[in-house]
Amino acid sequence: MTAPRSASQRRSDALEKLNAVHADAWVATASGQGAHLVPLSFAWNGEQVLLATEERSASVQNLRSVGSARIALGATRDVVLIEAVLDRIVAVAEAPDVIAEIYAGQADWDPRDAGGDFVFVVLRPVRVQVWREANEIAGRTVMRDGSWVD
Amino acid sequence: MTAPRSASQRRSDALEKLNAVHADAWVATASGQGAHLVPLSFAWNGEQVLLATEERSASVQNLRSVGSARIALGATRDVVLIEAVLDRIVAVAEAPDVIAEIYAGQADWDPRDAGGDFVFVVLRPVRVQVWREANEIAGRTVMRDGSWVD
Repeated sequence: MTAPRSASQRRSDALEKLNAVHADAWVATASGQGAHLVPLSFAWNGEQVLLATEERSASVQNLRSVGSARIALGATRDVVLIEAVLDRIVAVAEAPDVIAEIYAGQADWDPRDAGGDFVFVVLRPVRVQVWREANEIAGRTVMRDGSWVD
Repeated sequence: MTAPRSASQRRSDALEKLNAVHADAWVATASGQGAHLVPLSFAWNGEQVLLATEERSASVQNLRSVGSARIALGATRDVVLIEAVLDRIVAVAEAPDVIAEIYAGQADWDPRDAGGDFVFVVLRPVRVQVWREANEIAGRTVMRDGSWVD
């Protein structure tokens, strides 16, 4: 096992994954019936995670009712795990250009070309945990209550 | 994009991931407060997914109240996604040898050596979906209502 990373290194590694182009995240949401889990392309605008999916999808329906999600970036042994709350859901056709441009620039598709009932989902991280092996469980929380831990 | 895999090939690929040694799964569970998502080592006994985690974990608490989970194996672009229902939760110290042996043989640790309040969680897949790219969305369901699709 390698030595555990420092808090600042983990924060930096989390941001590297948040800024990765053409990457997918595992997005878990909940309804009264159970959990939903699906891989979705994402983008990061420096403060929020941007997803794009269909209005009728289970993820959007769950977010509209529960208002939170867990988002995993990276592999199961190089984990960046984000607890996020819903800021807003906006139809692609009505979205501010800044959201659409950031999403199209980082994800590997542009929902403005997709037709259908796609929406942007804007999520604000409140907790971020970063770990690889057992020796990184301690100190894994690099964001708490929406603030990066110093 | 490569040609979409046949149903039998996808089933075979799903079983290969279920039988992989020292692999982790993303396990999503739900409570009334939202989704929980965590990577866990797993094993497969041919009919059920076996997990081992702490009795007090959010995953176990959610499973005790909701009774279902979504389990993702593999990467976000080589997806095996399992909807599973809880068969039972059994304390490691009280578990049948067959469960403990299969788990220890496939996962990279043995909860019998771990102390603490670890339990085995036995989950029965009811739906399995397998896809890589957009051209595999059609036909992605290889198990439905607990039966492999022919």
